[in-house]
Amino acid sequence: MDNFYRSHGGSAGRGTHEGAKSAGMLIAETRDRLKSLFHAPNHEVIFTPTATLALNMIIQGMIKAGARNIYISPFEHNAVTRVLHALAKEYTLSVHQLKVRDNLAYDMERIRYQFDKQAPDFVIVSHASNVIGLIAPAPDIFSLAKKYQACTLLDMSQTAGLVDIDIQRSDCDFAVFAGHKTLYGPTGISGFLMKPEISLPPVLFGGTGVASAEQDMPQDLPARYEMGTMNISGIAGLHAALGWLLETGIDNIRKREHANRQQLLEILEGYDYLQLVGVNPEREYIGVVSVLIDGISSDSAGPLFDEHDIAIRTGLQCAPLAHKFLGTFPAGTLRFSVSYFTTERDFEALKSVLDEIQEDI
Amino acid sequence: MDNFYRSHGGSAGRGTHEGAKSAGMLIAETRDRLKSLFHAPNHEVIFTPTATLALNMIIQGMIKAGARNIYISPFEHNAVTRVLHALAKEYTLSVHQLKVRDNLAYDMERIRYQFDKQAPDFVIVSHASNVIGLIAPAPDIFSLAKKYQACTLLDMSQTAGLVDIDIQRSDCDFAVFAGHKTLYGPTGISGFLMKPEISLPPVLFGGTGVASAEQDMPQDLPARYEMGTMNISGIAGLHAALGWLLETGIDNIRKREHANRQQLLEILEGYDYLQLVGVNPEREYIGVVSVLIDGISSDSAGPLFDEHDIAIRTGLQCAPLAHKFLGTFPAGTLRFSVSYFTTERDFEALKSVLDEIQEDI
Repeated sequence: MDNFYRSHGGSAGRGTHEGAKSAGMLIAETRDRLKSLFHAPNHEVIFTPTATLALNMIIQGMIKAGARNIYISPFEHNAVTRVLHALAKEYTLSVHQLKVRDNLAYDMERIRYQFDKQAPDFVIVSHASNVIGLIAPAPDIFSLAKKYQACTLLDMSQTAGLVDIDIQRSDCDFAVFAGHKTLYGPTGISGFLMKPEISLPPVLFGGTGVASAEQDMPQDLPARYEMGTMNISGIAGLHAALGWLLETGIDNIRKREHANRQQLLEILEGYDYLQLVGVNPEREYIGVVSVLIDGISSDSAGPLFDEHDIAIRTGLQCAPLAHKFLGTFPAGTLRFSVSYFTTERDFEALKSVLDEIQEDI
Repeated sequence: MDNFYRSHGGSAGRGTHEGAKSAGMLIAETRDRLKSLFHAPNHEVIFTPTATLALNMIIQGMIKAGARNIYISPFEHNAVTRVLHALAKEYTLSVHQLKVRDNLAYDMERIRYQFDKQAPDFVIVSHASNVIGLIAPAPDIFSLAKKYQACTLLDMSQTAGLVDIDIQRSDCDFAVFAGHKTLYGPTGISGFLMKPEISLPPVLFGGTGVASAEQDMPQDLPARYEMGTMNISGIAGLHAALGWLLETGIDNIRKREHANRQQLLEILEGYDYLQLVGVNPEREYIGVVSVLIDGISSDSAGPLFDEHDIAIRTGLQCAPLAHKFLGTFPAGTLRFSVSYFTTERDFEALKSVLDEIQEDI
């Protein structure tokens, strides 16, 4: 990002000069890296400033195009549920939750039964819960959804670059990614992949630098959904992050994060006053673990960790639906996260805070 | 921006730890600098990734809230006209252009007559044309609009930080700014100011880090319109840019850009094959000048400048409406821009290209 602004600094699609062209090439190469990472050679990559905007564009657009029977996982974020809640005031929507058992397995038999009772138009699955890290069996759900001609959306905000998925083979019409989470890029740059043959009415409008005489948004992808000036230093950061990610290998990143999660679990299980939420050894997870502390609300426990430079997120983590499913609504949980980069020192710091709390209790 | 990511790097409103708090303070200070720059102590500052998104949120929201008779300047960008065009398919809108005379003066008498004939609900004015740089007399237009209880929107994308305007005293309900143009910040961060008492239904939905249990967007500003994760390195860049701008002084910046525009005009007037578009010495302008070249389309002239590292923008500059008004549609113009930072060397380079073209003609 530093290099981009110090040596180039142009805008893209707004002129033919060198600055604009080099920015254009950077963007094109970043699209290619994303297609390669997600095994989606035939999908289009659309950049948006945030995953929230991508979800708004896809969900609002699909509802505008006629989607009425909508299925979601019980772990959707407010970026999905608030959009559906708002649009249900304008359209007659029927929103259902995919059945998940108490043991946190997606119940494919009952989901088939749900689909038989009311055929899905649109199925939205959060690839992993941002509250407990549980990974959804997206390919199975989408393969079933396709038997009912439903459109499918995978929210990879928590998993892009971490959980390997073949988007092309997974009956995945739309897949949203966040640049600043498991892709290790900066904030302010995200986007989605889409099958180009799907008709998605735009919900946001503006200049694209192409076909400017037309007052309708251009038909061409990605311009149809990329209005306004792009966050190009963000793209430069994402470009670099993807370079590192492809070189390091998604499997190696996943393995190390998994080992770090195991270590985190072992530490947390050593304290009786902590209660793990939604952890089942038979399921698959990303490096996110939610806990409750006996007798202390999750919001008031947060500052104890802040003091030791441990950044956790407390409360509902913008996902009240997930907490309702887990029985932790409305107080929420304390959420710990590990990544590829978590160190022994981080774990030592965590242990010393947990020891301190134990003494106080 | 460099310093932010190397020394802080937290997200905002997503936790109470040090990283989140320092990002939160940076954002709060940037809001204060914007309020100070625009003389708008009682307006709320809402950040959006682009001015285009800000315009979508305001225009779509106002139409949702009932605005039907909408007046725009003849110089609006596609970020305004494409939104209106799209929403006219859903709502019965009556969109009028404010009368501007051939001498490029806004015809206040005829505008009053227009408003009498059909009272405005919503008046949108581009503070300066991105094609010819003409500055609109926004306070006069808005003061008139307020006699009809209209809501007002000033698009300062081309003028924020350059043309001093007292937002508080200018009957300005909404004012949109772009971070990466005359504010000299990075791309990917923009926003708008709004009077907090105006009821603007949200058109985008998602997590805000506050009031997460609620499925409606929070009533509190700015959270109501700031869903998703913010581009914080962008904010850091804008923060630094605003620091420089407030220190240098908007009048000094304007004076120097004005002097640079005069020098640009003198150079351009020295070549008979160039025809200036929309330049009238009696009007006020920012540092943007459009020209036509005899016998060469503006799009094919662009590369001649590229070769000499002169970045110009050719064609319609995403503003077909302005070109229709100016009689330069659909071929468009060659647009030159100067800033506070334009140097003597830049002018020399320009002259040598213009000399070369003269020899070829």
